[in-house]
Amino acid sequence: MGEFELIQRYFTRPTPKAVLGVGDDCALLQMAAGMQLAISSDMLVAGRHFFPDVDPRTLGHKALAVNLSDLAACGARPIAFTLALALPDASPAWLQAFSDGLLSLADAYGCELIGGDTTQGPLNICITVFGEVPANGVQRGTQPGTQAILRSGAQAGDDIYVSGTLGDARLALEAMQGRIQLPAAALAVARQRLEQPTPRVALGLALRGIASAAADISDGLLGDLGHILERSARGATVNTEIAINLLAAHAHFTGSSGQFGNIPSPQLALQCVLAGGDDYELVFTAPAAQRAAVQEASRTSATPVTRIGQIEAAPGLRLADGRGAAVANTYASFDHFAP
Amino acid sequence: MGEFELIQRYFTRPTPKAVLGVGDDCALLQMAAGMQLAISSDMLVAGRHFFPDVDPRTLGHKALAVNLSDLAACGARPIAFTLALALPDASPAWLQAFSDGLLSLADAYGCELIGGDTTQGPLNICITVFGEVPANGVQRGTQPGTQAILRSGAQAGDDIYVSGTLGDARLALEAMQGRIQLPAAALAVARQRLEQPTPRVALGLALRGIASAAADISDGLLGDLGHILERSARGATVNTEIAINLLAAHAHFTGSSGQFGNIPSPQLALQCVLAGGDDYELVFTAPAAQRAAVQEASRTSATPVTRIGQIEAAPGLRLADGRGAAVANTYASFDHFAP
Repeated sequence: MGEFELIQRYFTRPTPKAVLGVGDDCALLQMAAGMQLAISSDMLVAGRHFFPDVDPRTLGHKALAVNLSDLAACGARPIAFTLALALPDASPAWLQAFSDGLLSLADAYGCELIGGDTTQGPLNICITVFGEVPANGVQRGTQPGTQAILRSGAQAGDDIYVSGTLGDARLALEAMQGRIQLPAAALAVARQRLEQPTPRVALGLALRGIASAAADISDGLLGDLGHILERSARGATVNTEIAINLLAAHAHFTGSSGQFGNIPSPQLALQCVLAGGDDYELVFTAPAAQRAAVQEASRTSATPVTRIGQIEAAPGLRLADGRGAAVANTYASFDHFAP
Repeated sequence: MGEFELIQRYFTRPTPKAVLGVGDDCALLQMAAGMQLAISSDMLVAGRHFFPDVDPRTLGHKALAVNLSDLAACGARPIAFTLALALPDASPAWLQAFSDGLLSLADAYGCELIGGDTTQGPLNICITVFGEVPANGVQRGTQPGTQAILRSGAQAGDDIYVSGTLGDARLALEAMQGRIQLPAAALAVARQRLEQPTPRVALGLALRGIASAAADISDGLLGDLGHILERSARGATVNTEIAINLLAAHAHFTGSSGQFGNIPSPQLALQCVLAGGDDYELVFTAPAAQRAAVQEASRTSATPVTRIGQIEAAPGLRLADGRGAAVANTYASFDHFAP
């Protein structure tokens, strides 16, 4: 199978939204009047972001999901994406499963595959995703206005929320790499979260005009909340007693912790929730006056949200227990080039 | 140096054209009224598209140049790009040189780096580039009109042109891999073409409304012309006596061919020109009535063009010598997954 047959067979679909899709030097998009284009790009590397022998169907899902998650964080509606793919070889079974997983998720979000590149090389998947967001929103400095939710809008006194559940992807990784043992039901829940994250697109759209800032959680809650704090020049306190309950797999530990080796130790659970990474949930802020509106956005988007802390004027990211007592913050987020 | 310091130090620049550049979950672009967005994505893999020890400055140049070349083929004006980069390690010297080469070319074309991703992994560079092209152009079927030059517009009787010179990149590769010997001056010319191709953006813009079809030459002239023929459902004949003179390095062979081993044999020269690949020139078609306009576009864009053949109604890609006699076509284009 040659390169062009590969593209034709696995990656060419009708693109009713685009002016021009796969097959020319460029794809062409025409934005609706009053809309801005939101763009994000993520690269997934074998052995780094996924196990080389991962089910290719879940890999196709995840490769697009992590990009849709960035659109969700900005409150942008998905339109289209490009796929650049380096493959060691062109295995039809692998390609069929990968493209099935990829394009099923794309179809679910109305996100058209409009172009890309294929080449031989160590397995690497780079997706660039395009969404739309209305331009007639908050204006900052000399820039045109935007309704996009940015990282830079958090204000002292704002509530901090997260969507869904956190830490399970990391918990699954710990188990799959043999560092901990999990009961089968807990591993199944956690592994599903690692391999098939749900991009929170509907919640992001529902939060436009309500959330003051948002980011998606890819490197860990504290790291990604830290990006909001840095861009907003604010600080925050996060409640660890609420946070620790965000681990979905927790509900599936039927016995005592002693029964399953060193899991679930509260330390590891908190480490996974606060700094596990690979969650693809949203962390966002909103004024306290918007609490009812946040709950309504959660309801209409069918996405659970949990209030976990508060933005403060004093810089820095602090942890506190349920009684407000300080908890030491020793949770490092993921960094690809950490020394 | 951590991931975010790396991005801040080497890849964060002012982005006056963009609503929002590097540093949030998404970048934001607002298209000018009446403009469509042209998008292309190319992935470059170490050992496949470049030598792992290539000068990182020329690699930065080439990674963006091959993408700008796709915009050129569509007649789109560059606006912005995203960069996804997998690196084995974060060497400051390498990153400084790579970003210098990349951003120098970006500045020369007014193309802003607005976002991307960095990760650890086998060296891989994936750029997605964005350009603009007016919407009020030729309408095809039910699609909106576009002034973009597409592969699908060639008509029987149209002239076929190429820009610049062809085959030198492949010639340099043959020499650098020790399969042939070249005089120093010829190698210098050829290697410059391999490592620092010139995207033909100005020519592409000048050809809007004149060229009936265009493609950039990345896999080899015959292969990329073949894409035009396939998308246009036409055939063509290419003049090999004109084509062989498109090799820039030819002018630098001062002695007889015998003096430099088996170079320049006419067979190898023609192989390089017709199917060498990595040229990043344009192959385009235009009605014979546009010959003066094509020359004017060549002049205003300061880009040489050469008429090398003609589009025909009969499918297939034929070669002929200067007297019109058939020449056997044994020149295979590059295919990453050829059996």
